[in-house]
Amino acid sequence: MKHYTSIHDIDNIDTWIEEAKSLKSNPLKHKELGRNKTLGLLFFNSSLRTRLSTQKAALNLGMDPIVMNVSGDAWGIEFGDGTVMDGNTAEHIKEAAAVVSQYCDIIAVRAFPTLTDKAKDESEQVLKSFIEFASVPTVNMESATGHPLQGLTDAITISEHAKVARPRVVLSWAPHVKALPHAVANSFVQAMHKMDVEFVIANPEGYNLNPQITGDTVVYHNQEEAFKDADFVYTKNWSSFEDYGKVKNTDPNWMITKEKLGNAKFMHCLPVRRNLVVEDAVLDTDSSLVIQQANNRTFAAQLVLKKLLENL
Amino acid sequence: MKHYTSIHDIDNIDTWIEEAKSLKSNPLKHKELGRNKTLGLLFFNSSLRTRLSTQKAALNLGMDPIVMNVSGDAWGIEFGDGTVMDGNTAEHIKEAAAVVSQYCDIIAVRAFPTLTDKAKDESEQVLKSFIEFASVPTVNMESATGHPLQGLTDAITISEHAKVARPRVVLSWAPHVKALPHAVANSFVQAMHKMDVEFVIANPEGYNLNPQITGDTVVYHNQEEAFKDADFVYTKNWSSFEDYGKVKNTDPNWMITKEKLGNAKFMHCLPVRRNLVVEDAVLDTDSSLVIQQANNRTFAAQLVLKKLLENL
Amino acid sequence: MKHYTSIHDIDNIDTWIEEAKSLKSNPLKHKELGRNKTLGLLFFNSSLRTRLSTQKAALNLGMDPIVMNVSGDAWGIEFGDGTVMDGNTAEHIKEAAAVVSQYCDIIAVRAFPTLTDKAKDESEQVLKSFIEFASVPTVNMESATGHPLQGLTDAITISEHAKVARPRVVLSWAPHVKALPHAVANSFVQAMHKMDVEFVIANPEGYNLNPQITGDTVVYHNQEEAFKDADFVYTKNWSSFEDYGKVKNTDPNWMITKEKLGNAKFMHCLPVRRNLVVEDAVLDTDSSLVIQQANNRTFAAQLVLKKLLENL
Repeated sequence: MKHYTSIHDIDNIDTWIEEAKSLKSNPLKHKELGRNKTLGLLFFNSSLRTRLSTQKAALNLGMDPIVMNVSGDAWGIEFGDGTVMDGNTAEHIKEAAAVVSQYCDIIAVRAFPTLTDKAKDESEQVLKSFIEFASVPTVNMESATGHPLQGLTDAITISEHAKVARPRVVLSWAPHVKALPHAVANSFVQAMHKMDVEFVIANPEGYNLNPQITGDTVVYHNQEEAFKDADFVYTKNWSSFEDYGKVKNTDPNWMITKEKLGNAKFMHCLPVRRNLVVEDAVLDTDSSLVIQQANNRTFAAQLVLKKLLENL
Repeated sequence: MKHYTSIHDIDNIDTWIEEAKSLKSNPLKHKELGRNKTLGLLFFNSSLRTRLSTQKAALNLGMDPIVMNVSGDAWGIEFGDGTVMDGNTAEHIKEAAAVVSQYCDIIAVRAFPTLTDKAKDESEQVLKSFIEFASVPTVNMESATGHPLQGLTDAITISEHAKVARPRVVLSWAPHVKALPHAVANSFVQAMHKMDVEFVIANPEGYNLNPQITGDTVVYHNQEEAFKDADFVYTKNWSSFEDYGKVKNTDPNWMITKEKLGNAKFMHCLPVRRNLVVEDAVLDTDSSLVIQQANNRTFAAQLVLKKLLENL
Repeated sequence: MKHYTSIHDIDNIDTWIEEAKSLKSNPLKHKELGRNKTLGLLFFNSSLRTRLSTQKAALNLGMDPIVMNVSGDAWGIEFGDGTVMDGNTAEHIKEAAAVVSQYCDIIAVRAFPTLTDKAKDESEQVLKSFIEFASVPTVNMESATGHPLQGLTDAITISEHAKVARPRVVLSWAPHVKALPHAVANSFVQAMHKMDVEFVIANPEGYNLNPQITGDTVVYHNQEEAFKDADFVYTKNWSSFEDYGKVKNTDPNWMITKEKLGNAKFMHCLPVRRNLVVEDAVLDTDSSLVIQQANNRTFAAQLVLKKLLENL
């Protein structure tokens, strides 16, 4: 593995999960592996969990993390090919990525989608530019269409908490007031496709995810039906994919409640808006695995960094 | 001590002062204590001294500091109980505090008061929420009503510079153009109450601090009278407590001058506005202890972190 | 050397270049030198290369870097002498510099010029204030009139890539849409004056640099003539010095092209605006040394920090 850009970079999710659990049981075992190596964390967008957990993962491996908020700390980056740069951008990604590669042994990048320009978002311009123009490995800390550190985290968490051999896992849309990306949902779908689970999706009409990603996964438009016999309900809002980036539905009936959940475990990548996406009664009880997921973010990142370091 | 939230957490200020002096004389003695432990520094507000000195203290103990500007780096945090989060806040403190606890062994938080809502400020919502919802120790890096790292610093500095057994210490209000918090003054009062000093306060009428904090401390409304035979004049502006958060007085006669000061030492937590709060002639001579105070911030923080680390 | 403020602080550029090359061949050789020492990086302005390369240099020497965006993380700093601080500035540089010195063993500062007030810019108020009021060494990470870490970098890069004993080096102005500082150009001129090179400058009329800096360097107003037999073309835009800070010329004929360049190597400090300052055909071929320059930023900074550490 040269870069970690999507769930597709995981060759065998079962062995990855086992290795992540092993790191979790002894986080400092590979403290010498990253000694005198720097991880550059470049944020084009806000971050809390990813910012902290990826730094923690780097520290566990003995690496020195260097954090940059690209927009606030530096200036506008140009991605266009052949652009006459007489506007607002001051540095081309060709230089920026090559330059950061001079100081960092691994580069981790967060860059959200526009949610207004589907073609641009699907092209993954920022992430792909780093892969093309950086001379060191790139880690996706959430791009326009994927959040594979989260997807790997979720796979680990399901594996830890599954009580049956082949659990039923539901990815459920829930209402939100803002237009949110598809990245987390996409990577979760891809991760579930690699695991031995009974995986289905629940979302309102008009909210089907990219069919190239969901493939032949069963999609329910009736949440109650989907939740029947569920072991895990992974919840996430996303904006419409078909009517790209639009908020077409905020139906409160899709909020996750304790009653709907039954005995299933609740999962969410966070941040989550209480009493809009999910009611307090879920989050405040041990139906919820959200903090355990947050904890596993460290070990997902640590596993990815370890694999990249071993390959340097 | 499970958290360091106020001067009340200091069981014996004399032994704390001695231990801080000992750390100062050998700052790297406990470099192994914090090895592989992270300190998360969360700033809801600006900071220079606290930001740098607390990082330095952590480094002296071998810890890895991770800094976050909560508003700039992440998003709005919700503190209300049961709120339907369909507004501007994107993550509830219940999740945020629990999540940060997954990556940090100790959390340090700065969150200033509103100065418009007395009840809310007195409730110490942000600090108390971290204590309630984080699963690791919390350090107050200045909250709505207290700045106990500063108060401890000031106690250490007075102990270092006292030339008599029981020095006379005056806390004096001074003019300012903006409405400032009571936090530094409150913690200074509480620290002086724990020390063997002759402690009085000087402030204009209408500027008495919270009587629950000042207790039976003598309050002068005549600055000259208060300064008589003073060994230390600790200066700080604060907005009115009675007429909460209001700037009712900017009387330049309350500015600290070399003449008023006489042989007393001048102290201030900084930042200080020159020639408004205190004249250049004070700060530019060795009447002033402000830089020594700033230096002691490191050892106050280091002592607090050391005690929390030993208790993990 | 007590501070590193300008190219004039380099006593012998040839031995400095050799030492930098030696550091580059073994970057971790002095890892113990900076152990338990902190480098404070204070940014009054944006930065990418300087931010990352100076941190990397510090880490190579075993130092702990602490980064602060002064404006975003703290508050307005007052530089005026005797000012009654009842306006927007909250802390005087006298305190700020002395305070930062309590926590950092070396302070590095970036502060750009106003480009509207020539006298103020020439006075180097921010940089000089740190030198005056800080009690530790100060490093110039680009000030109003100089960028000596870049100038040293450029000298190293030319030395590495020179194919003749005394190469012809041209500093060429190129067009830009914004008013840019003279700092990089000034430090490059000063560095070239210290090296055994045939050094000339090419710029449009009205764009002569400060004559006190350029001295008797030949200045061409005809770019083609200047480029004849050039080995290195160092390109940079700057605003007018005579008509201070004005953009009087954006003539696209001054853009650097592959054809103009011939066999010469292209150099630029970055960030560079493509197809405005220089065409893609230059940057995308091995005519360009810009990434090698960026790489050498680490070793220029490391050499400066090493010399300051050895002198502590």
